Amino acid sequence: MDQPEKKDSPNKIKYLIGVMSGKGGVGKSTVTYLTALALRQKGYRVGILDADITGASIPRIMHLPRYDMKVSGDFICPVETEQGLKVMSISFLVDNEEQPVIWRGPLLSRAIQQFWGEVLWGELDFLVIDMPPGTSDVAITVMQSLPLKGFIYVSTPQNLVSVVVARSMQMAERLEVPALGLVENMSYFICPHCGQKTYFYGQDETEKLARQFGAELIVRIPISLDLARLPSEGLKPESPDVAEVLEKLGTFLINKLIIS
Amino acid sequence: MDQPEKKDSPNKIKYLIGVMSGKGGVGKSTVTYLTALALRQKGYRVGILDADITGASIPRIMHLPRYDMKVSGDFICPVETEQGLKVMSISFLVDNEEQPVIWRGPLLSRAIQQFWGEVLWGELDFLVIDMPPGTSDVAITVMQSLPLKGFIYVSTPQNLVSVVVARSMQMAERLEVPALGLVENMSYFICPHCGQKTYFYGQDETEKLARQFGAELIVRIPISLDLARLPSEGLKPESPDVAEVLEKLGTFLINKLIIS
Repeated sequence: MDQPEKKDSPNKIKYLIGVMSGKGGVGKSTVTYLTALALRQKGYRVGILDADITGASIPRIMHLPRYDMKVSGDFICPVETEQGLKVMSISFLVDNEEQPVIWRGPLLSRAIQQFWGEVLWGELDFLVIDMPPGTSDVAITVMQSLPLKGFIYVSTPQNLVSVVVARSMQMAERLEVPALGLVENMSYFICPHCGQKTYFYGQDETEKLARQFGAELIVRIPISLDLARLPSEGLKPESPDVAEVLEKLGTFLINKLIIS
Repeated sequence: MDQPEKKDSPNKIKYLIGVMSGKGGVGKSTVTYLTALALRQKGYRVGILDADITGASIPRIMHLPRYDMKVSGDFICPVETEQGLKVMSISFLVDNEEQPVIWRGPLLSRAIQQFWGEVLWGELDFLVIDMPPGTSDVAITVMQSLPLKGFIYVSTPQNLVSVVVARSMQMAERLEVPALGLVENMSYFICPHCGQKTYFYGQDETEKLARQFGAELIVRIPISLDLARLPSEGLKPESPDVAEVLEKLGTFLINKLIIS
């Protein structure tokens, strides 16, 4: 069922990976951005496909202003950021970002197909897909029809969240999309006033999930003000929290996909 | 397009309200539960319809164990909790809660129609719908075909989240579903070690949203360990954080829908 690029396509994408969870609001878009940037910082050519059509967040997370999209022949040109990332999101195609995309499933699936096949990605080492929550149309279409190398899963250490993430991991197993690894987000909070650590939830939920599906826990990301305020204040790559996450994500993926 | 109960239906539901956001992971299911319980504590007959088919969380939030669903004639009987709430969720119908529901939109819409028309709700004062994230099939079906009195919106004070919530509020305006009010969740965190308050995000995002759509800000819910651990430790109605939210939600809805 995979649809590789057509023979006359200008797109050559080596590694297509998705950032998945099943659950909403766990930080998929943030992890997508950090993953793409981590690979870019290692010298690779990287794109981001925002597959969350009805809940697009990538342009806000990445602080991308409004763009006039350009067209080249039959292809839409993705936005190119200062960091050298190519990005496509439905938000670039609507009049204003508060405009809802009120589409039933078939239209969502069609949009995903277009973002894959009719966007001028060119030659990329990595294309990272920001998946929407749920296990319905978009998830089905991406897993069934795109040549994915695997998913990075994002979870938080709450049993409620682990259960929903486990559902999406079961779905991917059934559709034979490998689990590359897991990211635990919102692991704990360090009070900026007293420096003490608070765990909001449990501490071993994500490890259990990793064991259950034979996937590695790549990194634990604390609730850091630098990351929480990413959409309003922009990325601070020099922040120790951010730098550590970038290093771990980049190293993990290169070892997993390229070196091994 | 509304589908009121059929004349021979055993269901008589006075106020059908939804808990909506557009965004995932902001606390819709928690607010759904607290809203239903608040109304129950005021003496009303209340049900919960979990419309998040692919991301069902209500049974975990409410600590509902596995049930054998009963059938009465052509109707499925909802689960009745110790607090006297009637609850229907897809999780009660799957073998185990980690089983994914891999359905495209038409099946999701059909499930919603069944949860509305083929569940034996009986006579209820309030039925509260826990909406999924997004503005696709389930949101369209609920808004177009169920006789909603309005939505309670859940947001967090991040501009990224407000933008996505604004999309769902625009959608509801277009489909003429009133905004009853807004709940701000994860407003701030009080360190259990030093007692200091930390705002992770901005402080006026939800107020802006309330003004923009002419809706009232009902309550601000802090990140409280009692609420964060609801799925693992169960509800503590005696916790001051929880008691305040219950009182404000109950009073607001009764004033808004019944007294006025």
